[in-house]
Amino acid sequence: MGLPGVIFALALVTVGTALDNGLMRTPPMGWLAWERYRCDIDCDNDPKNCISEGLFRDMADRLAEDGWRELGYVYVNIDDCWSSMKRDKQGRLQPDPKRFPGGIPKLARYIHDRGLQLGIYGDLGTHTCMGYPGTTIDKIETDAQTFADWGIDMLKLDGCYSNATEQEKGYPLMSKALNATGRPIGYSCSWPAYQGGLPPKVNYTQLGEICNLMSLQPVAGPGRWNDPDMLLIGDFGLSVDQSRSQMALWAIMAAPLFMSNDLRTLNSEARTILQNKGAIAINQDKMGVQGRRLLKEKYGIEVFWRTLSNSASALVFFSRRTDMPYRYTTSLGKLNYTAGSYKVYDVFSEKLMPGLSDSTDFTVSINPSGVVMWYVIPTVPLDQSLMRGGEYPNFRRKYRVSSQRSGVELPFPL
Amino acid sequence: MGLPGVIFALALVTVGTALDNGLMRTPPMGWLAWERYRCDIDCDNDPKNCISEGLFRDMADRLAEDGWRELGYVYVNIDDCWSSMKRDKQGRLQPDPKRFPGGIPKLARYIHDRGLQLGIYGDLGTHTCMGYPGTTIDKIETDAQTFADWGIDMLKLDGCYSNATEQEKGYPLMSKALNATGRPIGYSCSWPAYQGGLPPKVNYTQLGEICNLMSLQPVAGPGRWNDPDMLLIGDFGLSVDQSRSQMALWAIMAAPLFMSNDLRTLNSEARTILQNKGAIAINQDKMGVQGRRLLKEKYGIEVFWRTLSNSASALVFFSRRTDMPYRYTTSLGKLNYTAGSYKVYDVFSEKLMPGLSDSTDFTVSINPSGVVMWYVIPTVPLDQSLMRGGEYPNFRRKYRVSSQRSGVELPFPL
Repeated sequence: MGLPGVIFALALVTVGTALDNGLMRTPPMGWLAWERYRCDIDCDNDPKNCISEGLFRDMADRLAEDGWRELGYVYVNIDDCWSSMKRDKQGRLQPDPKRFPGGIPKLARYIHDRGLQLGIYGDLGTHTCMGYPGTTIDKIETDAQTFADWGIDMLKLDGCYSNATEQEKGYPLMSKALNATGRPIGYSCSWPAYQGGLPPKVNYTQLGEICNLMSLQPVAGPGRWNDPDMLLIGDFGLSVDQSRSQMALWAIMAAPLFMSNDLRTLNSEARTILQNKGAIAINQDKMGVQGRRLLKEKYGIEVFWRTLSNSASALVFFSRRTDMPYRYTTSLGKLNYTAGSYKVYDVFSEKLMPGLSDSTDFTVSINPSGVVMWYVIPTVPLDQSLMRGGEYPNFRRKYRVSSQRSGVELPFPL
Repeated sequence: MGLPGVIFALALVTVGTALDNGLMRTPPMGWLAWERYRCDIDCDNDPKNCISEGLFRDMADRLAEDGWRELGYVYVNIDDCWSSMKRDKQGRLQPDPKRFPGGIPKLARYIHDRGLQLGIYGDLGTHTCMGYPGTTIDKIETDAQTFADWGIDMLKLDGCYSNATEQEKGYPLMSKALNATGRPIGYSCSWPAYQGGLPPKVNYTQLGEICNLMSLQPVAGPGRWNDPDMLLIGDFGLSVDQSRSQMALWAIMAAPLFMSNDLRTLNSEARTILQNKGAIAINQDKMGVQGRRLLKEKYGIEVFWRTLSNSASALVFFSRRTDMPYRYTTSLGKLNYTAGSYKVYDVFSEKLMPGLSDSTDFTVSINPSGVVMWYVIPTVPLDQSLMRGGEYPNFRRKYRVSSQRSGVELPFPL
């Protein structure tokens, strides 16, 4: 279960501490059940949409067959309401037998056979948010081992029905327990959501020490990403412009790209946005520096900026206006770019624009609730040494886990 | 200029009083500039989108060539910011000479030649809402005559920069003045928006006596429609489900269907919704009885109902939920339908469903912020006499003004 709108975070312990799994050097991408399917367990009346092994097989098929996997969307993540209401005789979690008759290991094989990865959901507490068995402190090692035995690749650990003391103990314990299984399992901690999400209530210094959970822009990086939650693109509430805005802002924030939609019936606009190679390349930039808001005009225009590998950068011009397209005039110099000449690729119109000097005024037309997103490359790379190492132009993503995933190439010549 | 979200109303004086023009026996349909183009007068930098004769010619071309006119979308309506800042030497309004070099009569001919009608905007007050010359009480007759001389077919009279006393005098005066020209000109009064929109502040009894302006469900009818303002379908802020909801609710309310979008670049989803024949047939039902909300469940589901000609009716199941599709179970009997058997046509899925008894429970799956809309027809017409007159099945719309408009046939056999 997710808490929409609340920032939680992916916790990956890195250098020499509990969870040195080497996973998620770029933000993870895939599909997560919650926002679209919630706790629909009514398989009798709603068999195509209920939380069941069939639903996850369907999504795995779509990820594998419709071009998603090749773009990096490899996780198939179960959320709340998957389990039986009772643990088994050995005290282990078990899936609902009616909705997952084949069991989780078989589902994991199905997903692995398609070059994908399986995520699952747990809750540090007496119950999950929807009332299924939770993972109390004494069950942490058992559950971590169960997940590893099943072939799970990622765990989202929610925090309903536990108090602050239990969370402070439990989240690091699960990190160690997952690591102790020997299986690399991505670890998504919902902990900060239960602490209000922001400092000073959340002590990010302490969090960083315990599980490398990082939810502030300056400390995000490879293996430890901020997570503003699922992509709603392709669901019911976002217009095309709003969908582009979510994709652009998640890319700038180096946020995980977990879609939560029905991949079986996705319309072409949503598909085009989610499969936009420029936005994905920005999201997945290997340097892993989270972007930030540069400025906020009082008339509703905001500009976001992210630094990328090889002296490139991304800009997002975002309109919070509600009236009509706004013609916003600025220059790269005014946005703190150094003197020089730049190539600009417009991510959503997919057009490479002519060279632009830092001092040249330009105008972008930004739709209400929409964005213009640019990939900006210096015409003469500022740091020539980057080219000698064969690193430039090289935007291929590197994975340690899944060899099926190829990199995303930028859809324009550098 | 419109006041989004505020209910204003179309005022048509009917039997023997001021404005006996016979127009708008069904809710008017067409295109209105404001919501999409506002007061964009920057033709130097934004020539395709600025308020100018070219914009209105473009929209007329689209209405005439893309199948809109045949469905009833015949009005091309100018909003604020069209005029010069000064009246001419004879004290008449005149268009901005740079943006309307051909003048309004030429534009009216262009529009009439395509089987369409031209609407214009005025403001009862010293200035329009955006600061252009207004129509003070002493200018009402001059402006009405100017509009008639130009070949205008509809006037929207806004109410900025006037007080309650002036409005009480001016709105009925304009009605008489339009009628006195001898040209049938549809008359849309923004008056109630300046009175708060709702009783008791707005005295609808008085309004009804003065200009047949009707803004309450029980008193709406042919020639006097409630107007919840423009359709935003095809603009930037509505999802596909939200777009269907606006279309369905405007149909149930017998509201004018004035699109305010860019017909040159409309995407296929928006076009499909706006051109939905079932929704248009409901909106345009010749009996002209406005629908109403039947019930409002506390869990966010609302049901609207409208009675239609020939014993038919329309139902809208609307979800204000934000989570996921809701499976709503009810029966026609529970929705006050009389005993009997009914045929159901699902307006947006465009499927004719099998017969349904009033007592049979059915379940509709309603998307968050979306609707399911039904056209319901008794299998055995309740009033057999309707058939003898050749009225059943007859859903053709009748217009007195424009012979170019053909009727909208329901897209299913009765």
